[in-house]
Amino acid sequence: MATNGTKGADSATSKYDPDFTRNVINATGPKADPRTRKVLGSLIQHLHDFCRENEITVSEWMKAVDFINAAGQMSDEKRNEGQLVCDVLGIESLVDEITYKLTSEATDLPTASAILGPFWRKDAPIRQMGDSIILNEIPDGDHTHLYGVVTDFTTGKPIENAVVDVWHTAPNGLYEQQDPDQPDWNLRGRFFTKADGKFDFYCLRPTSYPIPFDGPAGQLLQMLDRHPMRPAHIHFIVSSPGHQPLVTQIFDRRDEHCTNDSVFAVKESLIVDFLPREGDPKAQFELKYDFRLVSFEAAEKAGVTPNAEQESATGI
Amino acid sequence: MATNGTKGADSATSKYDPDFTRNVINATGPKADPRTRKVLGSLIQHLHDFCRENEITVSEWMKAVDFINAAGQMSDEKRNEGQLVCDVLGIESLVDEITYKLTSEATDLPTASAILGPFWRKDAPIRQMGDSIILNEIPDGDHTHLYGVVTDFTTGKPIENAVVDVWHTAPNGLYEQQDPDQPDWNLRGRFFTKADGKFDFYCLRPTSYPIPFDGPAGQLLQMLDRHPMRPAHIHFIVSSPGHQPLVTQIFDRRDEHCTNDSVFAVKESLIVDFLPREGDPKAQFELKYDFRLVSFEAAEKAGVTPNAEQESATGI
Repeated sequence: MATNGTKGADSATSKYDPDFTRNVINATGPKADPRTRKVLGSLIQHLHDFCRENEITVSEWMKAVDFINAAGQMSDEKRNEGQLVCDVLGIESLVDEITYKLTSEATDLPTASAILGPFWRKDAPIRQMGDSIILNEIPDGDHTHLYGVVTDFTTGKPIENAVVDVWHTAPNGLYEQQDPDQPDWNLRGRFFTKADGKFDFYCLRPTSYPIPFDGPAGQLLQMLDRHPMRPAHIHFIVSSPGHQPLVTQIFDRRDEHCTNDSVFAVKESLIVDFLPREGDPKAQFELKYDFRLVSFEAAEKAGVTPNAEQESATGI
Repeated sequence: MATNGTKGADSATSKYDPDFTRNVINATGPKADPRTRKVLGSLIQHLHDFCRENEITVSEWMKAVDFINAAGQMSDEKRNEGQLVCDVLGIESLVDEITYKLTSEATDLPTASAILGPFWRKDAPIRQMGDSIILNEIPDGDHTHLYGVVTDFTTGKPIENAVVDVWHTAPNGLYEQQDPDQPDWNLRGRFFTKADGKFDFYCLRPTSYPIPFDGPAGQLLQMLDRHPMRPAHIHFIVSSPGHQPLVTQIFDRRDEHCTNDSVFAVKESLIVDFLPREGDPKAQFELKYDFRLVSFEAAEKAGVTPNAEQESATGI
């Protein structure tokens, strides 16, 4: 479509100053960093081509400016509307795929990554193995025992002191920072693996929910005649001092929105099956899920240093 | 470069899910407005192509999200940082060219338009013909008598009750809303033409100035190793009830930045020559500049209704 778009636009765009975009790109000075020069030059080219191909008018552009400013104005510590707008356009999932590919090309196939999303909070409480992250009474919630092992992708050995940082919504579809009725840090926690690499805790079988649609991201969905629903999922960041942090999500197969995610984050390898759990008064369901981390050494051998990238993805 | 970019990127992009972008675009529902479907589909395609061609990582994308949110957070009644970022990337000038071409294709060549910029204020004081818009003492300012006539582009007849809305900076390079030391509405005013279509008033010969570079737009300029200067110019919106409003700027030919505008707004037909003025104790310079407006009738005959566009451009 890009090629078609470019070709098809020739007649529509030829009436505009053929030197304009080149002049803007060439205004970049000699001291610009090479990556900046390449990336912003390409961004200018694409945005200008987009404007010409669609003959964007001043009025339409002004609406876009208002939209972008409104996203920033709505953003604060608890809400990142700029990120949400990108998510709705598939951009976070795409850059996640790109970043993952840059790593996995070199290291074969560790656990797949998925987008961070706008609801992670730094420094979640450290909890003891076997604890529950459910801080309030949820009588009819689908209580779940979630367990697994964190291993080194290359050696297969368990990783001690890996941190499993987990977060998900309450059954009402809200993360605790969105919901004044939930205790602070509800349904969040960090667990440190023991020498055997194992972790286990209690959480809820997750619930599908709409992304917040009271701001620009919601306007965008409405304009596109799209639903805001995300399939039920649990978020993780799994990290260890000697390994690249892994940002991912797992999705509940029974959820119809697995094929229909408003932010396009589902990957087949991240869809899981919750099983009925017998003989545990604390949980009706269980799920075993293992994480495979790529060591810095393996990453370096492969000539990639994507660690800094994933650290940034975790908001550090 | 667009074509080269697309070709060159084939090998780099083929490793990414070939269906992803189509899936995001096809998520658009049946009730989406056709223009919205076209424009946002094209935007998604261009942004995704941009990400793949440049292999944008999660870390780089997160910086962009922070950047966009910061632009919104900095924006208020007196400052539009989202607009300024677009200006630095040449986007306002480009959509201005597109909008102007859509009109002038049909109506030949009325006065050229130019970008509104982020410093216009609605409802400037109505002043009497021959008044000065200089509200404070500027002993060493280049005082200027500016005059001309507003005519109908098609008939050549003068337009009565056309509004000439004018604004420019003080010699320190600041608009009054940026500068607590200037009186409110300094160097701004609206003048109503008489039956002969004529207007005249006193202002200053304008000064080149840097756009505000203490925010994201400034960061962008720094990253691109570019200067923030705009050539000396005076802004106008000229309107009349039966005509399409004209948003434009005129530029002082003596200014070196006429070939080097940080927001790419200069057009040759908008560069003017200020002349020395004799025998007027109120001004050392004078400038005659006429405006030609396109009537609604002429626009409609030509099958374009760009008036709503330009009204929006004026912030209405």
